[in-house]
Amino acid sequence: MGGDAGPAVVVPGAAIALERHPGVTFLLFGDEGRIAPHLLEHPALLTRSRIIHTDAVVEMRDKPSQALRRGRGSSMWLAVEAVHKGEADFVVSAGNTGALMAMARLVLTPMVGIERPAIAGQWPTLTGACIVLDLGANIGATAAQLAEFALMGAAMARAVLHIERPRVGLLNIGVEEIKGIEEVKQAHAWLKENELPIDYIGFVEGDQIGQGIADVIVVEGFAGNIALKTAEGTAKQMAAWVREALSGSIAAQVGAFLAQQGLRALKDRMDPRRFNGGPFLGLNGIAIKSHGGTDALGFASAIEVGYDMAESRVVERLASDLDALHGKLGEPQQARGSS
Amino acid sequence: MGGDAGPAVVVPGAAIALERHPGVTFLLFGDEGRIAPHLLEHPALLTRSRIIHTDAVVEMRDKPSQALRRGRGSSMWLAVEAVHKGEADFVVSAGNTGALMAMARLVLTPMVGIERPAIAGQWPTLTGACIVLDLGANIGATAAQLAEFALMGAAMARAVLHIERPRVGLLNIGVEEIKGIEEVKQAHAWLKENELPIDYIGFVEGDQIGQGIADVIVVEGFAGNIALKTAEGTAKQMAAWVREALSGSIAAQVGAFLAQQGLRALKDRMDPRRFNGGPFLGLNGIAIKSHGGTDALGFASAIEVGYDMAESRVVERLASDLDALHGKLGEPQQARGSS
Repeated sequence: MGGDAGPAVVVPGAAIALERHPGVTFLLFGDEGRIAPHLLEHPALLTRSRIIHTDAVVEMRDKPSQALRRGRGSSMWLAVEAVHKGEADFVVSAGNTGALMAMARLVLTPMVGIERPAIAGQWPTLTGACIVLDLGANIGATAAQLAEFALMGAAMARAVLHIERPRVGLLNIGVEEIKGIEEVKQAHAWLKENELPIDYIGFVEGDQIGQGIADVIVVEGFAGNIALKTAEGTAKQMAAWVREALSGSIAAQVGAFLAQQGLRALKDRMDPRRFNGGPFLGLNGIAIKSHGGTDALGFASAIEVGYDMAESRVVERLASDLDALHGKLGEPQQARGSS
Repeated sequence: MGGDAGPAVVVPGAAIALERHPGVTFLLFGDEGRIAPHLLEHPALLTRSRIIHTDAVVEMRDKPSQALRRGRGSSMWLAVEAVHKGEADFVVSAGNTGALMAMARLVLTPMVGIERPAIAGQWPTLTGACIVLDLGANIGATAAQLAEFALMGAAMARAVLHIERPRVGLLNIGVEEIKGIEEVKQAHAWLKENELPIDYIGFVEGDQIGQGIADVIVVEGFAGNIALKTAEGTAKQMAAWVREALSGSIAAQVGAFLAQQGLRALKDRMDPRRFNGGPFLGLNGIAIKSHGGTDALGFASAIEVGYDMAESRVVERLASDLDALHGKLGEPQQARGSS
C-alpha cells in the first residue's frame, strides 16, 4: 500500500467504499503488520477483506525502470497481477505513478492496436464534471492516438458520468494557420467524418473545459498535464484570494459567517477529493491511480471510479469501439504493435 | 484601428495612457472620420496626436496570409511600418492577432538568430505577476528556442516588472522517464550550465505559475496557450461559483454586502484589464497585441507594456543577450536563418 499515508488512508477509504457498495470484497496488498491494526477498526470491512502480505514495496522515489526490475513481488506488482489473473476486477493505488503505469502496462498489456495508454481524470465543471485525457502518460500524440483517446475517454464518461453518447471535444488553440497542429487537425477530420459512438463537437479551447461544453476533452499528455496542474493552481490561488477577501475586516468576517452555507457548498464543489482517481485507459484491465496525498474520502472516490468502470464492463466495450475505429481509419492494427 | 470597438476603445485608452505619461505622442492609424469624433472628446490627447488616415482595414476574420497579401496600406500595416521607420517607438493593436503577428514579423523582421518570435503575456500571481511565453505564436519549440524564450521573457520582465535579474522557470510535467521532453531537458541543461543574465530556477509545474514562484515561465506555444486559456476559464468558473455562494440566500447576500470591500479588492486583483497587452518578442521593434474585447482601461494597460518596453530599450538589450546566448550554445547564428 502506497501513497503518503499508506494503510491509514487506504483502509478507511475502502471502508467508505464498502458502505456505498456493500457487495464489494477487497484484496489488500502490503505489510500485514501495518494493515491489520487499521482493518480491526472497520469490522464490516474486515469480514470482506483478505490481506495478501508482502514486505516488498515500490518507493515513491523509485524510477519506473527500477520499479520494473526490482518491484516484482511488491504490493503494487501483486495487486496489478491480481487484475491480470482475474482475481480482482480493478486495482487502485496511491503509490508511485510512473511505477504503477509501467507495471500496469507490462502486466495488463495494452489493448490490440493501442500503442499508448493514457491517464484520464475527472475535471469539475460548472455543470458537473468532464473527463480529460491524456494527463501525462505520454508526451505528444499522433492523430490516430488522439482519435483513440476520444474513444477511451468516451468509455470512461459512459462508466463514470453515465452518459451513453458523450460529447467529445479536441483541445486546440485559437491561432489560425500556424505550423505543427497537423495531428490535431487530422484527428479532427477523422472524428468528424467517421460514425463513432460519440457526439464529436469539434475543437475546444482551454477556457471552455470548465464550462462543461464537453463530456470528454482530448489532448496530448504534455499540454494535458499542464492544463490540469494550471487549473488546480488557479483554483488554489483564487481560493486564497477569496479567503483573504472574507477575512480582511470585521465586517468581512461577519459577512463570511452569514454566507457560510453557500461558502461551504462552494468548498464542496471544488473539493479535489470528489474528483480523485485517474484510470489508465487502453489496457486489458482496470488500474486506477489515486492521488498520493489524498485522505480516506479521496481514496474512496478512486475506488468508486474503478467500481463504475468494472460495472460498466469498460474494457470489453472499449475494445470493440477501438476495433471499429481502426477499421475505419484503415490501419492494420497488427502493424502498430502492442508493445 | 481594430478590436471589437475600434476608436471607441482605442482613443479613450490612449487618453488614459497620456494621463500616466504626459510626454507621449500618438500616431492614430485608421479612418479619420471615425477617429476624429472620439478624439475631440479628449482635448489633451488631441494636441498630442496625429491621425494617419486610411480606408484599408484588416478584418478580424482575415487569415494572416490574406492580410499580408491585401493588407498593405491598412491601418495595421502602416502602424507596424511606422515602428520599422522609427516614426513610432512601439505599436499597439487590438485587431486580428494572426495578421498582426504576420505583419510584425515581415515588416519588423526577427532578430538575428531568432527563428521564431514568441507572444508573451502577464499572468497574475499571488505575489504580483509573472511573464509567460510562448502563448501561441508557434507550436512546439526546440531546446535552443526555449533558451531564447527564457532571455526574451527576462527582457520583458526587466521592462514591465522592473526586475533586473528575473527568476526564470521552464514549464514541465512531473512524470519521470517518459519520452518526448528531450527539448525541455536540453534547454534545462543549457540554462543551468550557462552564465546568463537570469536567475534560472529549473523546472516548474503548472500549479506553480500562479504562486509567483518565477518571474518568467517558459513553455512552447501549444501548451502555453492552453495553460493561459485554462487558467482564464478556471478563474471565471470560480468567480461564478463565488457569486453563487454569495447570493444563494438572504443571509449570504447580507454577508456579501458586509464583505464588499474585500470582494471589490478581489475583483480588482483578478481584473484581466490590468494584465492586458502581449508583446511579440524576438523582433526588431516592439509590437503589442491588445485583447480585442477589452475596454479603454485594458487598452491603456497594453500601451503601458509598450511604453515600459520602449523606455527600457528592450530590443537592444535583448539583442545583446541573445548574441551572448548563441555564442554559448556554439551555434552559428547565420545558419539558423532569420526568415
